[in-house]
Amino acid sequence: MTQTHDDARDLDAADPLASFRERFFADDDLVAYLDGNSLGRLPRATAVRLAAFVRDEWGGRLIRGWSEGWVDLPVTVGDELGAVLLGAAAGQTVIADSTSVNLYKLLHAAAGVRPGRDEIVIDATNFPTDRYLVDAVAEARGMTVRWLEPDLVDNVTADVLAGALGDRTAVVVLSQVDYRSGTLIDLPGLTSQIQEAGAVVVWDLCHSAGVVPIELDEASVDFAVGCTYKYINGGPGAPAYMYVAERHLAASVQPIPGWWSAGDLFAMSDTYEASPTIRRMLSGTPAVAGMIAVQEGVRLIAEAGIEAVRVKSESLTAYALDLVDAAGLEVATPRDPALRGSHLTVRHDGARAITAQLIERGVVPDFREPDLIRLGLSPLTTSFTEVADAVRVLREIIES
Amino acid sequence: MTQTHDDARDLDAADPLASFRERFFADDDLVAYLDGNSLGRLPRATAVRLAAFVRDEWGGRLIRGWSEGWVDLPVTVGDELGAVLLGAAAGQTVIADSTSVNLYKLLHAAAGVRPGRDEIVIDATNFPTDRYLVDAVAEARGMTVRWLEPDLVDNVTADVLAGALGDRTAVVVLSQVDYRSGTLIDLPGLTSQIQEAGAVVVWDLCHSAGVVPIELDEASVDFAVGCTYKYINGGPGAPAYMYVAERHLAASVQPIPGWWSAGDLFAMSDTYEASPTIRRMLSGTPAVAGMIAVQEGVRLIAEAGIEAVRVKSESLTAYALDLVDAAGLEVATPRDPALRGSHLTVRHDGARAITAQLIERGVVPDFREPDLIRLGLSPLTTSFTEVADAVRVLREIIES
Repeated sequence: MTQTHDDARDLDAADPLASFRERFFADDDLVAYLDGNSLGRLPRATAVRLAAFVRDEWGGRLIRGWSEGWVDLPVTVGDELGAVLLGAAAGQTVIADSTSVNLYKLLHAAAGVRPGRDEIVIDATNFPTDRYLVDAVAEARGMTVRWLEPDLVDNVTADVLAGALGDRTAVVVLSQVDYRSGTLIDLPGLTSQIQEAGAVVVWDLCHSAGVVPIELDEASVDFAVGCTYKYINGGPGAPAYMYVAERHLAASVQPIPGWWSAGDLFAMSDTYEASPTIRRMLSGTPAVAGMIAVQEGVRLIAEAGIEAVRVKSESLTAYALDLVDAAGLEVATPRDPALRGSHLTVRHDGARAITAQLIERGVVPDFREPDLIRLGLSPLTTSFTEVADAVRVLREIIES
Repeated sequence: MTQTHDDARDLDAADPLASFRERFFADDDLVAYLDGNSLGRLPRATAVRLAAFVRDEWGGRLIRGWSEGWVDLPVTVGDELGAVLLGAAAGQTVIADSTSVNLYKLLHAAAGVRPGRDEIVIDATNFPTDRYLVDAVAEARGMTVRWLEPDLVDNVTADVLAGALGDRTAVVVLSQVDYRSGTLIDLPGLTSQIQEAGAVVVWDLCHSAGVVPIELDEASVDFAVGCTYKYINGGPGAPAYMYVAERHLAASVQPIPGWWSAGDLFAMSDTYEASPTIRRMLSGTPAVAGMIAVQEGVRLIAEAGIEAVRVKSESLTAYALDLVDAAGLEVATPRDPALRGSHLTVRHDGARAITAQLIERGVVPDFREPDLIRLGLSPLTTSFTEVADAVRVLREIIES
C-alpha cells in the first residue's frame, strides 16, 4: 500500500528515536496516523501496566490499594510529569479531572491572587473551552473579558498583547501552541510582559507539553494546565494536570473543595481546611487507571529525552512543510521551525471533504473548522515515511 | 482459615444471587471483604472488556474511536445506568467527572432554577464533600447555608426538615443513605416536602444506587448525583453520574462550560451555546475506560435485578445485625430493615485500632471517625459466610 520514498527512508534510518515506534501498538490498517496531537498511540508498556493494575491492584488489593499508593498518585505522577515535561520542581503539579475542569479551577485561583483587578485577557484564536471558561468565570466574578484578536498564524506576540495589558488586568490566558495553526508562542517573554503589568498568566500547554521543552519554574510562570492524551499518550479521556507556582499555593483558592483537597483526606471534619500542598487543587476521587497510564506515557518521553523529541519534531514539521510546499498547498503554520509546535496545518477550501477522503485511504489527520487540515506529527510514533505517504495521498486527492 | 457456620452456609445455599460471586475476581487473601461500599470488587467481564478496549479500541482504532461510539458514552452509559438503577427515563442521566465536580455543577444549576431564594439546606451528618461544596457554592452565590442537625442514626426525617424549609429555601441537599450510619431516608416523601416549600432537591445517591431500588422520575426528583465505584463496581476513581429532571434541563446552567457541553462539540464556535440535551452538564473530555467499566458494572446489576439485590441486601444486614447483637456490640444503624441501606455500622471506642486488627486478620471493613466500623455488604459479592467470619473475628478481637 505504501510507496517508499528515498529521502523519507534515509531520514527514518538516521532517526535516533526510530526504535520508539516499536514501543507502541500499531495493530491497525493505517498508512499514516497523523493525529497523535488529538489522541496519542497506545504504549505497549501501558497496556501491560493497565492489565496488571486492573487484576492485581483493583482486583487483588481492593480498598487497600488506596493506602498502598493510589492516594499519592495525583502528586507523584504530577511531580514526575512536572520534572520531565514542564521544568517544574516537585510540589507544584498535580494530576486531576479534565483540562476543562482544571482550567476552571485555575482561572478562579488566578483571579483570586489579583484582587482589585477585574479583567481577564484571552485571545480569540484560543481553544473553545478556554474561551468559554474565561467568559463564564469572568461573569461569575463580575470581571470583564478583554479579547486579543491576533492573526491565526502569527498568533499572540508581545505587540498584540501590549495593547491589552494594564492596571485592570488580573489574568491572561494563553495557549503555548495554537490548536489550529500550530504556532508556538514565546512563553518566557510573554510571561515576563504579563507579570510586568502586575497580572498573572495561565498557560494552556495541551499542544506543547511532550513535544516542546518547557521550563515553567525558570520562566517564573504562575499557573499552567494541560491534557495528557495527546503527545503524552495517556489514552482517551486520561486525567489532566495543573501547575501552580509554589509562591501562589497558599493564596490559591479553588472553587470546588472536596474531601480530596482537604488538609486531611480522612478527617472528614466539620469545617473545610484546604491542604497546604498542591493537593488543595484536587476535588473528588481521581481516576487511578488514568493516572497510571499518564505515568507510563511520561516515562517514555523521559527515556527518549524531551530535547531529542524536539529535534525530531522540528525535522518532521520541516519535512512535512517541504512536501506540502512542493505540492503547492497553502500552509497555516509558521515557516520558522522555532515558531512551530509539532503539527503542520494545511488550509484548503475543501478541507472537510479532503479529510474524509484521506481517512478513507488510511491517512488520519484532523479537520478543524472552517478550512484546516492538521497534520499531527508525534515524534515518538510518527515516521518520515508516514509523512511522505500522507502528503502523497493528500496530493493525489487534491489533484484528482 | 475460615470456620463454617451452619446458618451462614444455609443462607448461602439458599441465596439466588450466590452465583454472582463467581462473576468477580477474588484473587486475594481475605477472609471477608466488607468494603464494597468504598470500592466494589472487579467484575471479570470488566477486566476482559477493559483489555479489549485498550488494545482494540484505543490501540487499534485510535482517534476514530471517538466517532465510532466513545463520544456518545456519557449519554448511552448514563441512560443505561439511569434505567437500571435510578428509575430515570432516557436523556436525564450523564456520566462525567467525579461526584464532587458533578455535585458542584448541580448545586449551581439547582440554585439557578430558584432565583430569588437564597438558602441552601444540608444536614450536618452529610458527607464532607457535600458540606464543603454547599458552603463554597453558597458563598460564591451570596447565599446562606441552613444546617440540619439530625441524630446520626435517625438521620433526616420530615420533622427535622420541616423547621428549615421556607420561602427562602432554594435547594436542599440530602444523601439517601448516610455514609456513616447506613440510614436510608425517605426519598419520595422528603422530595415532596421540599417541593411543597417551593425548593428543589439534590439527592446524593453514592451509598444507595446499586443496592436500593430508586425511582427518581416517579418521585419527581429534581437533581441527583452519585459515584460508580461502590456498589456499581466501576473501579477506583471511575467517573460519576448526574441526573437532571427533564423539566429542569433548559434552565440548568452549569458553571464549567466546555467544548463537551456545547451544542455542537466540533463547531468550536466563537460563542458558547449549551447543548439542549443532558450533554450540557459535561465539561471536558470524559474518561472512556472509566465509562466502559461503569457500563459493565451496571449490566451485572441489571442481570441480577435490583429488586433481588435489595432482598439480599436486607438479608445480609439483618444477619449481620443478629450476629453483632449476639456479640453485645453497639450498632449505629437503624434496626428496621426498611430504614437501612447496605452497610451496618458498629460503634466502639476502640474502632480505629479494632479496624486495623481486623484488616491484619483478613477482614476488611472501613473505619469512620470518630468511633465507627462500617461493615459494607455488597449483595453481588458478599456471602453470608463472609459476614459470619467477619463478626467472629471482630468478636475475638474485642474479647481479647
